[in-house]
Order: sequence, then structure tokens, then C-alpha cells
Amino acid sequence: MSNILMTGGAGFIGSHLTDELLKRGHKVTVFDNLSLGRLSNLEDAQKSSDFKFIEGDILDKNLLFSVFKEGNFDTVFHMAANSDIAKSHANPNVDFDNTMSTTYNVLLAMKEFGVKNIVFASTSAIYGETGVKVGEDFGPLFPISHYGASKLASEAYISSFCENYGIKAWITRFPNVVGERATHGAIYDFINKLRKNPNELEVLGDGTQVKPYLYVKDLVEAILLVWETTNEKINYYNLGVETRSTVKEMAEMVIEEMGLNAKIRYTGGDRGWIGDVPEFSYSLDKIHALGWCPKLTSNEAVRKSIRYILDKDYGKVGV
Amino acid sequence: MSNILMTGGAGFIGSHLTDELLKRGHKVTVFDNLSLGRLSNLEDAQKSSDFKFIEGDILDKNLLFSVFKEGNFDTVFHMAANSDIAKSHANPNVDFDNTMSTTYNVLLAMKEFGVKNIVFASTSAIYGETGVKVGEDFGPLFPISHYGASKLASEAYISSFCENYGIKAWITRFPNVVGERATHGAIYDFINKLRKNPNELEVLGDGTQVKPYLYVKDLVEAILLVWETTNEKINYYNLGVETRSTVKEMAEMVIEEMGLNAKIRYTGGDRGWIGDVPEFSYSLDKIHALGWCPKLTSNEAVRKSIRYILDKDYGKVGV
Repeated sequence: MSNILMTGGAGFIGSHLTDELLKRGHKVTVFDNLSLGRLSNLEDAQKSSDFKFIEGDILDKNLLFSVFKEGNFDTVFHMAANSDIAKSHANPNVDFDNTMSTTYNVLLAMKEFGVKNIVFASTSAIYGETGVKVGEDFGPLFPISHYGASKLASEAYISSFCENYGIKAWITRFPNVVGERATHGAIYDFINKLRKNPNELEVLGDGTQVKPYLYVKDLVEAILLVWETTNEKINYYNLGVETRSTVKEMAEMVIEEMGLNAKIRYTGGDRGWIGDVPEFSYSLDKIHALGWCPKLTSNEAVRKSIRYILDKDYGKVGV
Repeated sequence: MSNILMTGGAGFIGSHLTDELLKRGHKVTVFDNLSLGRLSNLEDAQKSSDFKFIEGDILDKNLLFSVFKEGNFDTVFHMAANSDIAKSHANPNVDFDNTMSTTYNVLLAMKEFGVKNIVFASTSAIYGETGVKVGEDFGPLFPISHYGASKLASEAYISSFCENYGIKAWITRFPNVVGERATHGAIYDFINKLRKNPNELEVLGDGTQVKPYLYVKDLVEAILLVWETTNEKINYYNLGVETRSTVKEMAEMVIEEMGLNAKIRYTGGDRGWIGDVPEFSYSLDKIHALGWCPKLTSNEAVRKSIRYILDKDYGKVGV
């Protein structure tokens, strides 16, 4: 059984990982500044005696180091990051600080306290706008968002820390992820807009942007499978779902689930914002070869996420 | 004609670039903290009325921004970086601060003051230990030195800044570079060791490490050719030389040029230090297609560099 530090463990994906790791008998300490995470995501976890929560910021290096010193962790799941990709266009520091510098500080702490294993939340955004179905060994890597740049920078430092200090890494690259506890994204935006104006929904771009949306619990299964079954110095996997959803499909599902009859008005253009990749598709051969497939299609995951948000807002949590 | 800011312009490669750009009629402002650079490298440049020198550190953001504000530059040649790759093993911050954060600060300044062109000194070290002859589109990118990680991180941010703020980039990836004004490296180490003990030369590794060594003036020609003749959003080129030199050959050349009869003692192992790539070779098809080839072979460049260092130390600068 592992003694795990989960950074960003109060967040969307980190909290699901925490729940599942506790179920599997591991000890989990969540370190989270609660800027994007919520304590309510850890309600289940808090019932376990193997769980501990520490509120704090990874950029506070003294605190981070003291947490490492006390914790005697053998493994870090580093999930802490900015997760609002569009935000960084106006202020690149959002991702430089919260997505890249957090990784670097975690690596410094691992070096200092001899922690030898890191599981890392990377992203499809490192590949940039490729125009082709990308496998894990795709190059060149020219990310178009600061988020993607910061995750690629993180991977680069993870790699050099692995070589220099005998650390092992499990790098899992995520597509868009949806499901319970998601805090923002297109689905949220659509619901909020429709609550303000139930007759018309403004959609950024022309609606044809098409991407795979992976269900969060499928994602968690895949991350843990990679961690449990691979053992190279650096293990790196695309995680995703073969099916995809268009923005138009997502908008229509939201309108349908809200029982509305709204018109969709597209702002036009091939992408929602600068740094957005309008069309993306992954090669998933490598993770499929480990015996994993997601249970939900992209559209099923989107619909589940819509229902959860709508239910939750009416006090009926638990889809 | 361009109005250029040359960061690290007092250094080995930056000073040669400065000389050549002034010759070609451009205006060059060198910004250098003189930690690795030397004013003596700019003796020729200082004779030009198109040249300006500002001493300062890129990590001093206020100073950097004021230099950008005053300068009205249209192009940045960003050459400033740590250049001692082995140093960062004990303290990764050396490269995080001087190789990566410097790039990030330069990019922030370019965003702030609307500078739209960057020429960047990247490195073969971004590719890590590949075991194959790498082309520019090689993946995955898992650098094994913090230097390589910091340069890959820099490329990542250059890419996202290009997309977000309409910047163009010329990314040139260097192998080992030798020649006039080099400040350290294996040749220097060998000469210094032999001065202490002319009878025996200790060489790190087993001497079979083999890499291309490019002559600095050939490198400068290639960088400027890429900058002058390509015009994509991101232009990226391996620069190098097809021939290579083994550490053994270099040690023997140093002994010969010093007129000694020293025995070589190898410490053993396949590499000189952690983070060292023992064998490396590039694909140069892309830069060759632009019509460039280096004038000196790897061994010729090494020998020229040895003679320069030996001559220089005896007051006979100018090989």
C-alpha cells in the first residue's frame, strides 16, 4: 500500500482519484489551496482514517517542504493546476504559476525528501494544433495555449528530475474531462447562459469544434491502471475516448436536458478562444493495449455531466 | 534593417552573432549580466555606432521592461542562458532561473511592448537520449538534463506566445559549439588538468562518448540564414555538423597541441556526468535544404578551438 500525497486533491479529478485510492487501501494526504477545489468534494474521503487534508499552496515552498518532511510519502499524484485554459490569454502567469511552477516545486520537494514516484496529470494540449490523430510519440510539440505550454514544460522537468534523481514517472495525458464535480467548461457556460436567457444560447465559434470528452470515472480507472501496471522510468499514455462530441451536439443536449426550446446563435469562427484547438483526436492504441476502454462514449459522458449539474443545482446530488 | 535586442550578447555565441549582425547593417543592443559573458567579447562591436551595451539581469523584470520600453526593438535574439549543463544536477535552479525563467520574462516583455519576432537558441538536449538520429519532428521529448528541460520549456512558451500574441519565432537547436570565446567545456577542462599534471589526463567516462562539435562561426551563419530566409509562424531547425568527435579524439588532440606526452586515464562508464547524452546525432536535412553546410568538420572545429585557447592564454589572440 502506498503513502500518497495528492496535490489538487480537492479538485474535480483529484478528489475522484482520492476516493478510489482510499477504496483500494492506500493512505492519501490531500494538499490543496481550495482556489479551484472544494472541501465538499472530499466528504466521502473524510470518513476514512487513511485520509488527511492539508490546506495550503504549493507555491508556498516552506509549507510544501514541511508537508513532505512530515508525510514520508512514497508517491505523489500531482493534480494541482489551473484548469481554466482560456483564462491565461490575458495573463500568462495564471498557468506559469499554477500549472508549471507548482510542478517544479513538487519536484524540488521530491528531490529534497527522496520521494521516488510521481503520477502526473498532463494534457492533449501539449500537442498543439496537429491536424492529425496524435500518438504519444508525436512531434514537434508546439502547444498553442499557455496551459499546454505549462504542462509540456512540466513534463520536461519531470523527465530531467527522473534522470537526475532516480525518480519514476507516470505521465497521463487527458483530453477534455467531464462528470461529477466539474467546476467549469462549455457545459457550465451553456447552462448559465440559458438561465439568464432561456430563449437564445450564444455559442463561441461555429459549433463544429469537435473533441473527445472523457467521463471522469473512466479517466480515474485509466490513470490507476497505468500506475499499477507499468514500470518504465517514464511511462506516458494518452487517455481518452474514441468518440467525440461537437460543440453543437453539446449545446443541443443542454437545451434538451433543461427542457427548453432555445435558438442557438453561433459567434462564428473555427474556435472558441485563442489557444483553443478546434478539432482534436488521439491515438489510444497504447492505453487500449493495457486492456482499458472507457465505459461511456463522449456524448454519454457529456449528457451525464449535464444531468449532474442540473440535478446538483436542485439539491439532488448523485447521478 | 532590424533593431535587435540581443540577450546574452556578451557571451560566447551572442557576441559572434552581434558582430555579424552589425556587419550586416543591423542595430544591436546587447543586454547581459556579465555572469558568463565578457565585455572583451564586444571589443569589435563597441566600435560601431549601431551598437549599445546594457548591463543587467533578465530576472530583474523592471529593468528588462524599461529596456524594452526605451528600445523600440522589432526583434529579440534570446541567447541568454546557463551554458554549463553539468552544474544543474546539484542545483536545478541554475537552469530553471537562467535558462527558462529568462525566456519567460523576455516573452512577457515582448507581449507587453508588442515585439513580434524572436530568434531563440535551443539545443539538441531537448531530445534527450534517443538512440536514433533525430530530426526536428522527433518525439517523445524527454530531456535528461535540466538544461534540456529548460530549453524545451522555453520552446513550449515561445510556441504559446506566438499563437496568443501574433509573435513569430525562429528556433535553432544547437549541438556542442566550439571556437573563439568559448568559456568552458571538455577542451577547457582537459587543458586545465594538463597544466596541473602534464603527465596524466583524467577523462570522465570511457572516452567513447561521441558528438558533433560545430564551429561557432558556422553556427552564426546558419542562425542568420534561418532568420533571413524562413517565415512560418514557428521556424525550427537543427543546426549541426554531420561529422562527430569522440572524447578520446579530443583528449588526444589537446595533448598533441600542447606538445605533451601524457597518458589518458578514463574514469569509466558510458557518460561524463548525470544528464550527459553519451552519443548523439542529428538529422540536418532541413537546414541543408536551405543551402547551408558548415565549413569545418567536427574535428577541425575542435582543433581550432584548442589552438585558440592555447594561443589566447599566451597573449596571441586571433586564430
